[in-house]
Amino acid sequence: MGGNTTGSAFRVTTWGESHGPALGAVIDGCPAGLELAEEDIQQALDRRRPSTGVASTTRAEEDTVEILSGVFEGRTTGTPVSLMIRNQDARFASYEALKDVFRPGQGDYTYFRKYGLRDWRGGGRASGRETAARVAAGAVAGKLIATAGMKVLAYTKNIGGIEIGNMCVSPSEEWIKKVRENSLHCPDEKAAAVMERKLAAVREEGDTLGGVVEIIVSGCPAGLGEPVFEKMDAALACALMGIGTVKAVETGDGIDVAFKKGSEVNDQMNEKGFMKNSAGGILAGITTGEDIILRAWCKPIPSIACGQQTVDIQGRNRSIQIQGRHDVCVIPRIVPVCEAMVSLVLADHWLRQKAVRL
Amino acid sequence: MGGNTTGSAFRVTTWGESHGPALGAVIDGCPAGLELAEEDIQQALDRRRPSTGVASTTRAEEDTVEILSGVFEGRTTGTPVSLMIRNQDARFASYEALKDVFRPGQGDYTYFRKYGLRDWRGGGRASGRETAARVAAGAVAGKLIATAGMKVLAYTKNIGGIEIGNMCVSPSEEWIKKVRENSLHCPDEKAAAVMERKLAAVREEGDTLGGVVEIIVSGCPAGLGEPVFEKMDAALACALMGIGTVKAVETGDGIDVAFKKGSEVNDQMNEKGFMKNSAGGILAGITTGEDIILRAWCKPIPSIACGQQTVDIQGRNRSIQIQGRHDVCVIPRIVPVCEAMVSLVLADHWLRQKAVRL
Amino acid sequence: MGGNTTGSAFRVTTWGESHGPALGAVIDGCPAGLELAEEDIQQALDRRRPSTGVASTTRAEEDTVEILSGVFEGRTTGTPVSLMIRNQDARFASYEALKDVFRPGQGDYTYFRKYGLRDWRGGGRASGRETAARVAAGAVAGKLIATAGMKVLAYTKNIGGIEIGNMCVSPSEEWIKKVRENSLHCPDEKAAAVMERKLAAVREEGDTLGGVVEIIVSGCPAGLGEPVFEKMDAALACALMGIGTVKAVETGDGIDVAFKKGSEVNDQMNEKGFMKNSAGGILAGITTGEDIILRAWCKPIPSIACGQQTVDIQGRNRSIQIQGRHDVCVIPRIVPVCEAMVSLVLADHWLRQKAVRL
Amino acid sequence: MGGNTTGSAFRVTTWGESHGPALGAVIDGCPAGLELAEEDIQQALDRRRPSTGVASTTRAEEDTVEILSGVFEGRTTGTPVSLMIRNQDARFASYEALKDVFRPGQGDYTYFRKYGLRDWRGGGRASGRETAARVAAGAVAGKLIATAGMKVLAYTKNIGGIEIGNMCVSPSEEWIKKVRENSLHCPDEKAAAVMERKLAAVREEGDTLGGVVEIIVSGCPAGLGEPVFEKMDAALACALMGIGTVKAVETGDGIDVAFKKGSEVNDQMNEKGFMKNSAGGILAGITTGEDIILRAWCKPIPSIACGQQTVDIQGRNRSIQIQGRHDVCVIPRIVPVCEAMVSLVLADHWLRQKAVRL
Repeated sequence: MGGNTTGSAFRVTTWGESHGPALGAVIDGCPAGLELAEEDIQQALDRRRPSTGVASTTRAEEDTVEILSGVFEGRTTGTPVSLMIRNQDARFASYEALKDVFRPGQGDYTYFRKYGLRDWRGGGRASGRETAARVAAGAVAGKLIATAGMKVLAYTKNIGGIEIGNMCVSPSEEWIKKVRENSLHCPDEKAAAVMERKLAAVREEGDTLGGVVEIIVSGCPAGLGEPVFEKMDAALACALMGIGTVKAVETGDGIDVAFKKGSEVNDQMNEKGFMKNSAGGILAGITTGEDIILRAWCKPIPSIACGQQTVDIQGRNRSIQIQGRHDVCVIPRIVPVCEAMVSLVLADHWLRQKAVRL
Repeated sequence: MGGNTTGSAFRVTTWGESHGPALGAVIDGCPAGLELAEEDIQQALDRRRPSTGVASTTRAEEDTVEILSGVFEGRTTGTPVSLMIRNQDARFASYEALKDVFRPGQGDYTYFRKYGLRDWRGGGRASGRETAARVAAGAVAGKLIATAGMKVLAYTKNIGGIEIGNMCVSPSEEWIKKVRENSLHCPDEKAAAVMERKLAAVREEGDTLGGVVEIIVSGCPAGLGEPVFEKMDAALACALMGIGTVKAVETGDGIDVAFKKGSEVNDQMNEKGFMKNSAGGILAGITTGEDIILRAWCKPIPSIACGQQTVDIQGRNRSIQIQGRHDVCVIPRIVPVCEAMVSLVLADHWLRQKAVRL
Repeated sequence: MGGNTTGSAFRVTTWGESHGPALGAVIDGCPAGLELAEEDIQQALDRRRPSTGVASTTRAEEDTVEILSGVFEGRTTGTPVSLMIRNQDARFASYEALKDVFRPGQGDYTYFRKYGLRDWRGGGRASGRETAARVAAGAVAGKLIATAGMKVLAYTKNIGGIEIGNMCVSPSEEWIKKVRENSLHCPDEKAAAVMERKLAAVREEGDTLGGVVEIIVSGCPAGLGEPVFEKMDAALACALMGIGTVKAVETGDGIDVAFKKGSEVNDQMNEKGFMKNSAGGILAGITTGEDIILRAWCKPIPSIACGQQTVDIQGRNRSIQIQGRHDVCVIPRIVPVCEAMVSLVLADHWLRQKAVRL
Repeated sequence: MGGNTTGSAFRVTTWGESHGPALGAVIDGCPAGLELAEEDIQQALDRRRPSTGVASTTRAEEDTVEILSGVFEGRTTGTPVSLMIRNQDARFASYEALKDVFRPGQGDYTYFRKYGLRDWRGGGRASGRETAARVAAGAVAGKLIATAGMKVLAYTKNIGGIEIGNMCVSPSEEWIKKVRENSLHCPDEKAAAVMERKLAAVREEGDTLGGVVEIIVSGCPAGLGEPVFEKMDAALACALMGIGTVKAVETGDGIDVAFKKGSEVNDQMNEKGFMKNSAGGILAGITTGEDIILRAWCKPIPSIACGQQTVDIQGRNRSIQIQGRHDVCVIPRIVPVCEAMVSLVLADHWLRQKAVRL
């Protein structure tokens, strides 16, 4: 009930606060026999870390993962895999000044209303830092589904209105390389350079930018997903909308199909398979075997340096100006989180599928 | 695991196929003492039924609900509430011709790939008819959350590109009345008339249209939702994307915020509360107490009368033309389904919240 | 949360009250492709019905099951299987006199304290009649695990202190036939005759008797069960103790092992397998491949004709004498319920095991 | 699905192996505002540790717990409480000799059959050491239910056939003190002395003993438990049978009631309440408000020093003699585990009850 667990066959529970001793995840249901080492997870965590680019904060977290259980002699044993990341740079003095105040656009007010108290150090559990645990668990999921040929790629589609063109279907190795090498996780170098300039300008203003992440899953077998409440697109929408910054989620041609006719939208088939993929790899909530295509629309980071009006826990007016280390754009750090969340859903549904036929 | 259950405190399991003996839902976790009669549910089912308008099929289902358990002397007893709707007009001769063929845009192909066999009568469980059970269960959820002052209103925002303007915040009684009385569930009569004309024209072509449903929840208390994987917006996105026709989901200002700056998006506060509601009533996955605002983008119905190319279960090319009774636009029937799904999520999270504080 | 669902891969939700319109079960997660007809389920229900023997009531329920969904052309489709049994003989006038009174040994008092109100017609959901739905669902589970060679047999071990000797390991066809043919489900005819006489005498006194049911599972593969909280023996104990009348549960040599030494209890192995089966087929919560052996100790039925002292809902002293149709011993009707519950657990864990190894 | 999580409102997931880096538990759903410090948990862990008595091993684990999340300024925040215990004395050389051999009475064989590989260091996850994580989580549950007046006491009822008499109803402070002070957790000093002598003699033989733990819950409110599959007694039986060593579970008068008449067993009531408590505080699966009474029958520890016959992973005959540090009787260490498991169930059902009435 507590809402910190996801999945039914590949179950992941995360825990931890921004400025507590550590963050972590427990994976229950990872099949026995999967090769797994801390390096596999560390790579994903490193991609989530603040880069040296203009988009990022200066918080210097190493984010070193430790596998505490469930792996023996280099393979998973079938018992829970416990992952832990110690918080190393947990200075919270800068938050003390705002401990009685609700920062606009953050979870401060809603956590207080939910629980009657809150951990005000860096947003506590509502901090984006919590996603490190998801990325760690997602890396294990990613390794698992890779054994079935699935590959999940997320990349920056748009920052502050600067949008890159469509990729060809099923990302090529070259395209993936470009995503991995660019500090904004954007495969179009020229667009990325424009984004960087815009980010630098907005940072000067003490303001922040949003954007769009696109996620492509290639190699997903047909037949994954459930008929009614846990349709594959529903599960994926839940996964992506469950990232703090995401305000809208699309599958396939998404928004555009609302304005088209059935004859334009239906993906007809012939002996070679689907003739196009407007559906984005999912029909009636179940995968078609085509690429799964998703887009997550992200709001700008709410921690801005500009002055803002708010109230404190007594409900009195307060004017604040947020200090401290903050990113100017969340997109580069959200890209690996999107990959992780999508991988978790696929791992779960892939395992569930094993019991569907006699 | 089977994906036909939703919720953890207010748990709903649905069952039934388009052309089987019946459809139904079992609600486990409805608190004892709620006044409940079949009429309460029947009203919602009647709103979901094909109207006499141009958008609808001619399938003449009465959709009479029967309460089989969990209610005694007019009140819920705390034990499972079982609801059943008999299928009365279950002619499936028109489907027999296509029983070996995968209709484009439907679940035919994916169900076959998932289960290795499929109930081809009217789409089986993948039929939109399955949503009758959701609407029945949603009506119970709606009665439950109404005891806490919550009200869920869905209405037609856009059909085939014809879009109505924004409503004022928190729907007035007049606005609600207009929605309830219009056969397209559209509160703007003039726009509705234009939609009707467009629908009539598209029907002539044997084609179909999509659209947008907007959902407003008023009276929702602050504090509902869970911190990480079951954030309120994630749960609502899952609920809406779990409707077969929905391809994108937005909360609050949704897509637009991706192109704005933090200073524009943040909802600042003063002593009177939030100064605006760009967030759509949810921050960090937890309700703020403001109206919850959602939009569901729906694809056109795939059952078109135009000729289409597809394959059969042996993978051979086939040209088909779909016969039978089909709507030209799903939106009017999806409106009550959206209300139902949102009500289910709110009922669940409202009950869960009772155990959150010491 | 509501406690009316069991299983995680093979999920069963039951609903219904003793004197409501119907009882039923929804099975979500039954694999596609299982041959299933109403007759398969009817057989199990018929074994649960009151026999003409001395142990039973005279309530004349036909208990005819209807499959409402999830089966097409004689096979399961993978979607939920909904089962319904109409209550046909639902006279409750005899209960009206006691509607404000808590009958000793029944759920009257506790349901009232839990829910603040109760369905007093025949015990409502607390009635033993609820087990009809479990037996129906258990019959489907039984068919499923039979495809893997598993067979579940329960029989009467003891009624009112009259106990039959140990069966040979893995019940023979002859033994099973004897169980099926005897009206007390007791394979030892002579003992059964003595039980019958004792039951007749106790019925004269207006009193009731308890007893012991033994359950043997043959053909269960090694490796089923989970490491910590859902060990196979824990799941089975939960299943059996969840039958209203059961007050103690044993696995293998059970109680006796508490008084033995490790050297006597350990089941040593050699090349042919386990040298004995003191463990009852389960080690560390996981099946060994040997027969699973369980015993359920049942209390006498609380509905006795003798005068009893109790209180009403205002807490005032009341003397009562229970009228109506009541069994003198629950054991014969509990035997098929035990089979059902054990089958449900095995079906669930057998499906879960499919996702355990890479 | 993985079976390492228990509870639905108060959810606990444990992880860790006997000789891995650490063990731990994540609690999701603990209400916000509970005072909690590491000392609260440490006390329970200390009671579980090997004492200096004759029953225990010499493994010198400090078992120091660390709270990694979910507590801020001395109170729970409502977010997951993560607990970790580092394994400090994880020498496993003595196990290396047996790494290809299945020790009789252990999980070696069944884990291998389940997962296809196993962590052979000290039994891996099948080790009794895993219960340290349960005790840690149970201590939090115990603190939570204490706020509602509930108190859980377990004690040694029987070791190797030496049994103590019945306690008076609802344990007195003096009785509790005696349990807490005795190294065998046995409140009868004289019996405890006899037990110690028997244990010493059996240790000489290289053998082990089983016994019986009794658990009393006082102060439990009426109304906890669920109607069908999660009856309170079913949940408690599951919890206790889920302890590796337990082979039978009784509630109330348990086994004895199978041989009594209804008129003897029914707990009649008068204006002062129940006139006796044969039911052990539970009727129809729901608590009555009387003391809950449970007994767990435990097998002797399988790690005996005597020679034993077994097979290796190739199925070849092997004669073994187990070396290393092993207890002669599990009872003293199981007593706090029983308390923990019962506390977890009560905490879960107490929270669930908050949403049961309108």
